Amino acid sequence: MSNNRPLILVCNDDGYSAPGINCLVEAMKPLGEVVVVAPDKPQSGMGHAITINATLRLQEHKREDGIKVFACSGTPVDCIKMAVKVVVDRRPALIVSGINHGANHSINVIYSGTMSAAIEGAMEGIPSIGFSLLDYSIDADFTAAGEIARKVAAQVLENGLAPNTCLNVNVPKLPLDQIRGIRICRQAKAYWREDFEERVNPYGKKYYWLAGDFENRDEGTDTDVWALENQYVSVVPTQYDLTHHSGLEALKTWEF
Amino acid sequence: MSNNRPLILVCNDDGYSAPGINCLVEAMKPLGEVVVVAPDKPQSGMGHAITINATLRLQEHKREDGIKVFACSGTPVDCIKMAVKVVVDRRPALIVSGINHGANHSINVIYSGTMSAAIEGAMEGIPSIGFSLLDYSIDADFTAAGEIARKVAAQVLENGLAPNTCLNVNVPKLPLDQIRGIRICRQAKAYWREDFEERVNPYGKKYYWLAGDFENRDEGTDTDVWALENQYVSVVPTQYDLTHHSGLEALKTWEF
Repeated sequence: MSNNRPLILVCNDDGYSAPGINCLVEAMKPLGEVVVVAPDKPQSGMGHAITINATLRLQEHKREDGIKVFACSGTPVDCIKMAVKVVVDRRPALIVSGINHGANHSINVIYSGTMSAAIEGAMEGIPSIGFSLLDYSIDADFTAAGEIARKVAAQVLENGLAPNTCLNVNVPKLPLDQIRGIRICRQAKAYWREDFEERVNPYGKKYYWLAGDFENRDEGTDTDVWALENQYVSVVPTQYDLTHHSGLEALKTWEF
Repeated sequence: MSNNRPLILVCNDDGYSAPGINCLVEAMKPLGEVVVVAPDKPQSGMGHAITINATLRLQEHKREDGIKVFACSGTPVDCIKMAVKVVVDRRPALIVSGINHGANHSINVIYSGTMSAAIEGAMEGIPSIGFSLLDYSIDADFTAAGEIARKVAAQVLENGLAPNTCLNVNVPKLPLDQIRGIRICRQAKAYWREDFEERVNPYGKKYYWLAGDFENRDEGTDTDVWALENQYVSVVPTQYDLTHHSGLEALKTWEF
């Protein structure tokens, strides 16, 4: 009987036991049959990485509410591929990824395992959404983000999404009643100004930590960064064609 | 004196000692001062992954021709970040990545460590090019690809590239005199139809290998796949804004 309900696949990049994914599972339960396939360890910053020179494993875990959870030894993108091809026996109606512990707005989308899972879902032709909360803390309050996730997911189940696109949803770190609404945005032209912290290990060898500051060079009020700074949820329709179409003609004048 | 020559940073995803990167170094030597910062082990399929929960190391290696080679313990994108921030003392005029052992056309660009290094270069504001040869063999003949890399790199040094773009160059597996020319293309709408091969280890546990077939669903004659199948080198201008701009207005009609 439960098979009449839409199948909702839940993934993330913080790992199958992270608070954010548990919140997302709870948010999805009223909307359909939920199955979780998520990394068995944190996979932040993995971007669209896949595992091609090593093997993959799946480990099933039981939740008290009976929802099946599969911990996958690979990246978030591996999780989506394995979920669709190995785990589920019918086509998911929706893929949701997150709720990420930390922002995935602007340029962060390209580094984000959370969003790469959603993009891979779109590549599979399945409506997909990535959710992130602007709070890196393990003790973050996901209440508002969960409510918003349910609202956006319900709309996507109802309306579908344009082919080859998914949604990138970021939620400000605010109680629900202080969030001013949901804004459809483009990704801001914002960057990381990185630096590497050099240290020396106890054996005299140098090593480095990647560190950096975030820099928004985009003054637009139609961006995700603007929305989030102004107490809105940002929703960016996200695609994966990397061709710079408007640059094609100029290159054709080059003489090789 | 050598500092008057343009600085060319060379990276890849197959590792600092792969035949493809050695060919690329040789191709770049007539064009400028070359420095190599590349992964210390194969990093194929790493996409735009970065190392944020672990430390990074750099190991310097000497080549007989005096060119400095730094092997980095991270991903191709880490290599670019470390190269620009830690290794070089002036701004590279050009970043080249490759020559990859295997194709990076169509959708492969999003999974490719080679191309992610070039995209990261573009994000740094440095003209960048990724090169790939349609031959996965470790014994592949890179002669033609090296000639083409030099030709394209020389053009980019002369003309520059549009902001926020890099080039994705794929070379067919052919001798130079059988290559019909260089075509400016868009990325084809082609996909991997994946499957997972299930095996059982000696201790009775299941594991999986990612496998799959490549499927071109794009009939266009303006695509990289078409060019390569017709004995041309494909050059795709590549960007990293993932916003689906034409989808913004439709979403604004949704009621949240």
